[in-house]
Amino acid sequence: MKDIIIVRYGHRPARDSRMTTHIALIARALGASGMIITDIRDEKIKSTVKNVNENWGGNFFIEMGTKWKKLVHEIKKNDDLLIHLTMYGVKLKKSIIKKIRKIKKNVYIFVGSQKVPHEIYKWANFNIAISNQPQSECGALAIFLDRLFFGKNLYLSFENAKLRVIPTLHGKKIEEINNDY
Amino acid sequence: MKDIIIVRYGHRPARDSRMTTHIALIARALGASGMIITDIRDEKIKSTVKNVNENWGGNFFIEMGTKWKKLVHEIKKNDDLLIHLTMYGVKLKKSIIKKIRKIKKNVYIFVGSQKVPHEIYKWANFNIAISNQPQSECGALAIFLDRLFFGKNLYLSFENAKLRVIPTLHGKKIEEINNDY
Repeated sequence: MKDIIIVRYGHRPARDSRMTTHIALIARALGASGMIITDIRDEKIKSTVKNVNENWGGNFFIEMGTKWKKLVHEIKKNDDLLIHLTMYGVKLKKSIIKKIRKIKKNVYIFVGSQKVPHEIYKWANFNIAISNQPQSECGALAIFLDRLFFGKNLYLSFENAKLRVIPTLHGKKIEEINNDY
Repeated sequence: MKDIIIVRYGHRPARDSRMTTHIALIARALGASGMIITDIRDEKIKSTVKNVNENWGGNFFIEMGTKWKKLVHEIKKNDDLLIHLTMYGVKLKKSIIKKIRKIKKNVYIFVGSQKVPHEIYKWANFNIAISNQPQSECGALAIFLDRLFFGKNLYLSFENAKLRVIPTLHGKKIEEINNDY
């Protein structure tokens, strides 16, 4: 796999701001490269993620406003992989994870907020269900990424972080990192 | 383990309604028994979960309004297990999962929306980080439950469901279940 990029479809700034921010946090923490919010701009999310990067490192990107159809055509044209997370999809078997990991192209993960256009079900290389029950897209993305990386991306740290958590059984410890050395 | 119960702390109806609903969906889909929203009532979440249960089965419960301190005292008095998911906590090692699974009591999973009182860090048996990066509580809960059940609870179905998804590689298929037989 090259880059893992989340495609957030159907974002409504008033209603979905926190949910979409949480999707970005999950994707960043688990090693995705960035998120594209289709069809609309929401500067608040971009600035939240910028703050997180500044303090905790890395360069998780947010792109906004790309038309979803144009983006998906681009993905297909480049022969990149398009995965759609949906409760209607197939189970995430190990054989599917292995297939995805062998791909030498970018992997786009389509995560809907509003009802997803039927074309996506057709055009996605895989429609994958993380539970066939009514499910949270945040929960689905988190489990999908955790399993995609065989559980190895759960405790990533990022370059140029100013802050680092010192894991503690009872309390809160944060260390400031001196990047001058 | 007996029942797995989510404790949702700091819920603000206007701001957190969707997030808390998503937490309930994740918990239900992955086999928890119910969720307690502390200190406040939010009938909308209760009715959403009731609808989900009616269509998709099971009896995931929502309790509301219990004072958090009273609830936590009760948990400690009963010698039930209290787990707090926080980015400041320790890594979820296999040895910790094994310890938790051996417990013969209820397991309460404390998930904060607002800043969590410092007492919780002291009183929790385990403060566990699902990533030490800024993280979504939805994402943290989903991965925690998936790993707690060794990945075996991802495709649960529930008793008395009216609807069932037929997993499909490209499309949406739902079957109505005739419970008369």
